Formats: sequence, C-alpha cells, structure tokens
Amino acid sequence: MNIVPLRDKVVIRRLEAEERSKGGIILPDAAKQPPMKGKVLSVGPGAYDKDNGVRKMSVKEGDTVLFTRYAGDEIELDGEKVLIMNEHEILAIIK
Amino acid sequence: MNIVPLRDKVVIRRLEAEERSKGGIILPDAAKQPPMKGKVLSVGPGAYDKDNGVRKMSVKEGDTVLFTRYAGDEIELDGEKVLIMNEHEILAIIK
Amino acid sequence: MNIVPLRDKVVIRRLEAEERSKGGIILPDAAKQPPMKGKVLSVGPGAYDKDNGVRKMSVKEGDTVLFTRYAGDEIELDGEKVLIMNEHEILAIIK
Amino acid sequence: MNIVPLRDKVVIRRLEAEERSKGGIILPDAAKQPPMKGKVLSVGPGAYDKDNGVRKMSVKEGDTVLFTRYAGDEIELDGEKVLIMNEHEILAIIK
Amino acid sequence: MNIVPLRDKVVIRRLEAEERSKGGIILPDAAKQPPMKGKVLSVGPGAYDKDNGVRKMSVKEGDTVLFTRYAGDEIELDGEKVLIMNEHEILAIIK
Amino acid sequence: MNIVPLRDKVVIRRLEAEERSKGGIILPDAAKQPPMKGKVLSVGPGAYDKDNGVRKMSVKEGDTVLFTRYAGDEIELDGEKVLIMNEHEILAIIK
Amino acid sequence: MNIVPLRDKVVIRRLEAEERSKGGIILPDAAKQPPMKGKVLSVGPGAYDKDNGVRKMSVKEGDTVLFTRYAGDEIELDGEKVLIMNEHEILAIIK
Repeated sequence: MNIVPLRDKVVIRRLEAEERSKGGIILPDAAKQPPMKGKVLSVGPGAYDKDNGVRKMSVKEGDTVLFTRYAGDEIELDGEKVLIMNEHEILAIIK
Repeated sequence: MNIVPLRDKVVIRRLEAEERSKGGIILPDAAKQPPMKGKVLSVGPGAYDKDNGVRKMSVKEGDTVLFTRYAGDEIELDGEKVLIMNEHEILAIIK
Repeated sequence: MNIVPLRDKVVIRRLEAEERSKGGIILPDAAKQPPMKGKVLSVGPGAYDKDNGVRKMSVKEGDTVLFTRYAGDEIELDGEKVLIMNEHEILAIIK
Repeated sequence: MNIVPLRDKVVIRRLEAEERSKGGIILPDAAKQPPMKGKVLSVGPGAYDKDNGVRKMSVKEGDTVLFTRYAGDEIELDGEKVLIMNEHEILAIIK
Repeated sequence: MNIVPLRDKVVIRRLEAEERSKGGIILPDAAKQPPMKGKVLSVGPGAYDKDNGVRKMSVKEGDTVLFTRYAGDEIELDGEKVLIMNEHEILAIIK
Repeated sequence: MNIVPLRDKVVIRRLEAEERSKGGIILPDAAKQPPMKGKVLSVGPGAYDKDNGVRKMSVKEGDTVLFTRYAGDEIELDGEKVLIMNEHEILAIIK
Repeated sequence: MNIVPLRDKVVIRRLEAEERSKGGIILPDAAKQPPMKGKVLSVGPGAYDKDNGVRKMSVKEGDTVLFTRYAGDEIELDGEKVLIMNEHEILAIIK
C-alpha cells in the first residue's frame, strides 16, 4: 500500500523504546512510556503558504526524528501501526 | 440527487472496516472502531484565498483517502450515509 | 415583511424532514432529528474582505442547501420560523 | 443627552415584543422572551481597518434591525434602557 | 503625581452613580450597580499599528465616556481610585 | 550578575507598598495587596515585527511603571526577587 | 548522539538549583523548586517567517538562559535529561 500525505503531513514509524535499562535489567511494563522517537516514512509536498505558494519541508524520508508525545493520528498501514502528524509536531532530527 | 460542495468541502463515502481479523476470525462488534478510510465522491471548488482567489484542491473525485476519526458531518444522500468534511481533515491519499 | 441580511448572512427556511421511513411506517417523534436541509430565502451582499472589498456569495435565493445541524439563529418572520446563518455554515448545494 | 458611539458601535432601542399571541390571548410573562428587534438610534463612524482606514457602516439611524439575542451592553440613556452593540451583532435590516 | 499611559491606555475617573432614584427616594446599597460612566483624565499616544505606525486615539482628556462594566484595572492615583483601560473598552462619548 | 532580556521583555523591581495607611496606622498584613508599581531595571531590544523589523520599546531603564497585578514571571536575581514581563503588561509610566 | 532542532527550537540543559541557602543550611527537598536557568546546547535555524524567510535566532550555543518554569518538552539525550523548547519561552540571557 502506498500512502501520499497531504500538505505538511509526515508518516512516521515509531521506534521501539529500549526495553532494558542501562544496567541490562528489564524494566517492568509500567515504567515504559510511549517512545518519542521515530523514522520518517513519507512526507507531504509542504504546507500551502498564501504568500509564497508551497513551503519546503525540513524533514525527509529516512530521517530519525523526535516528536512530542501523543503527536499525530495513529493509522494502520499494511498491518503496521504508524503515525501521521504535522511537520510542526516534530521537534528535531537525530543524526 | 446531485450534491455540489461549497468552498473546500469534500463529500466522502466511508469504506467499511474489514470485519475479520487477519486470521479470519470474525471480530465482535465492540472491537470495531469507525473506519478512517473513504472514497471521495465530490469536491468543492476550493477555499477562498484572500490573496490568490480560489485555491486548488489536492484531492479529486475517486481518490481513496485517510481522514481523522470523527471528521466531518454525516448526512444522508440518496438513502446512504456519507460524510461532508473540509479538505484539511484529510490526512493522505492511498494509492 | 422584507428582510435584508447584512454581510454574508443568509436567511433559510428549513425543509421538513420526511415523517415516514422508507417502508412507509410513521416514525415516532423521538426518532426525528432536526433536518439539515433548507431553502435559501434571501442572501446578504457578501462579507467584507479587507483586501478585495466585498466577496461574492456562493449561494443564491432559491437554492436548496445542506447546513450543519444547529447552524444559525432562529427568528420569526411573518409568523414562520426561519434561520439566519453565515454562508460558511452552509455545506453544499443540492441540485 | 447626546451619545456618540465609537468605532462600529451602534445604539439601539429594543422594540417591545408583542404581548399578545395571534389569537389575542395575553401570554403569561414566563412565555415572553427578550425581543430581537430594535430601532437604530445612533451609529459610530465605522471600525478602523488597518488597510483601508475607517470602514463604512451598513446600518443607519432609523433602521429597524434584527440582532442576536443577548447582543450588546445595556445602558440607561435619559431614563430609557438602550443597547450599545457592535455592528457585526446585527443580522439583518427589516424593511 | 503625573501618569503617562502607554499605547492605547486611557485613565478614567468613575463618575458616581446617582444615589437617588427619580422620585428622590434613596435606593438601598444593594440596588446600586457599579456605574459605567467616567471622565477621561489622560490618554496614551495610541496603539501601535504595524502598517501605519501609531494609530490616533478617538477620546481625549475631559471627555465623558461610557465603558463596559468591569472594564480596566483599578489603580490608586494620589489617594483616589481610578481606572486604566484600553480605548476599545470605551463604548461611546457622551456630550 | 548581568541580565539581558530578549525581545520585548522588561526586568522590573517591585516597589514596596507603603505599609502604613494615610493616618499613620500600620495596616494588618491581610489588608496589603501586592503592589503594582515598580522600577525598570533592564529592557529588551524590542519585539520582532514582521513588517518593520524590531519595534522600539516605550519604557526605559529607571522608569517607574504601573503594571497589572500578577504580571510577569518572578525570578531571583542576585538574591533579590524581580519580575520579568512583556512590555504590553505595563500600563503606564509614573513621573 | 547529535541532535538538530527544527525551526526555532532550542535544546537546553537545566542547571541544577543550588542546594544550599545563602547561610549554608541545606534546604529540605520540599523547598526546592525546579530551576529556571539552563545552558543552550543547540539551536534551530530559526522560525519560518512568511514575509522574510527564516528569522534569526537571538540565543546561541553556550548561552546561559532563563526560561519560564515548565517550558519545553523533556527528552533523554545520551542518558541525560534535556529540554527542547521554543525560543519564545526563553526570557533572558544571563552574562
């Protein structure tokens, strides 16, 4: 299935939070918070800007990004849960 | 009955959620959430843009689209329930 | 009595919801929801647009329109209850 | 006393709701709702528009107007209660 | 003490509500509502307007004005309680 | 310690409310409200204005100003509690 | 790990509040409020400005800044908790 985001929408696959603490001890489930890191799968053409037409996106396919917890709408794509969010909900790119 | 959406309104027919899980077991009703996928039936001329006049729509009749759950107003059109929503409530086109 | 709406106001007479279900059985009152269809009686000159002066209306007298449930203010005009609403509360024209 | 409204303010004298129903029966007080019709007593010079300077008013002294219930601030002018409201709270002119 | 309001601020001395009803009977305290009339003591240079620089004020020192009940911040100036409010909280000038 | 406010931020030292009433009687603590007067310690370069670049500030270091009660964030600067607020929370300059 | 903030985002390491009062007495935990001072680790390219393109940032890497309590989102970067916030949540630079 091929998904084409509109405007400045970005499709992101959440990266699993590491399930072990630094010392290698498996953390109980309750201690795991939803991760805020993800991989960009697809980006829209850019938001419409009434003065300058379409505005360029700052993230691209393949980027690893940080986004605000609870950002985006969760959708199911080919049996996998992914997020679709606005670019402005992305905080930073991780290199 | 012929419906002509105003501005950037889009008329969408919801696509039924698949009623079986992957393994072929019929899911109980409570497990079904309202689907977020639909088929575009009709699109408005585009929102008015005070600088550039009417702005072009990014979806067209026949597109399969993803939209935010609870987007739009439900209306009855020729005995069928359809949704009428703003284009910006559509997240992506599925090809 | 003659009513002249201001700006982008539209005066609309609600069309009665059909009181019978498809099979001809009269529905009990509780099942009737307020209709969302109406006939345009009168339209304002158009909203003021600070860049382009007055903006043209997209509906005209006599149009049958769909509008969001609870749109508008109800007023009594010559003993009949009509709605006065903003054009942007109208979703589509029905032909 | 002479009152000069500022900006797009309009001074309006409420027109009394008719105290009898169509059949001539006097309605009990509880059935009377505050009227939404009024007579324009005085209009401001028009709201300031940052692009075009002062914007012309669409109502004038003497007009009979409909306004949203609860619009405006009630003030006492020469022993009479009048309303002072923004022009955009006026829905239509009645001729 | 000399007070110089900033932007479109206006310093206003509340005018006492008349403590007698028309027939000369002194009204009990509970019947007195805070007055909405005042005398302009001092006006700011005008709000900054990003297109036209500073915008002219419509009220001047000495004007008797009507303002919305509860408008402004109450400050004590030389032992007297005065109000400092934005010009747009003033409804009209009384002549 | 030297503090450089950003944008249109202003650093203000609250001036103590006089602890005696006019007649010289010391007021009980409950009667003291937080003062609204202060001395400007430092001002930012001015808010960014998208049309005109940086906009000039209307207050300067050393000014005695009135500000809305509860304006600003309280910070500790060299062991003294000061306020850092936006210029638009300042009502007037006292001379 | 290298983090590249988007738009006008700033990555900040909180500076620990001093755990002793001036007289050297260790304050009980309950008396410690989250600190509002931090060190800038990384800054974005600047917010997009529809009239002027990208707008310059007023803080730079290495600056010690004051920010509003509860500003930003807390993220974990190389095992250390840091904040990522918008530049407009920064109040002042400390020299």
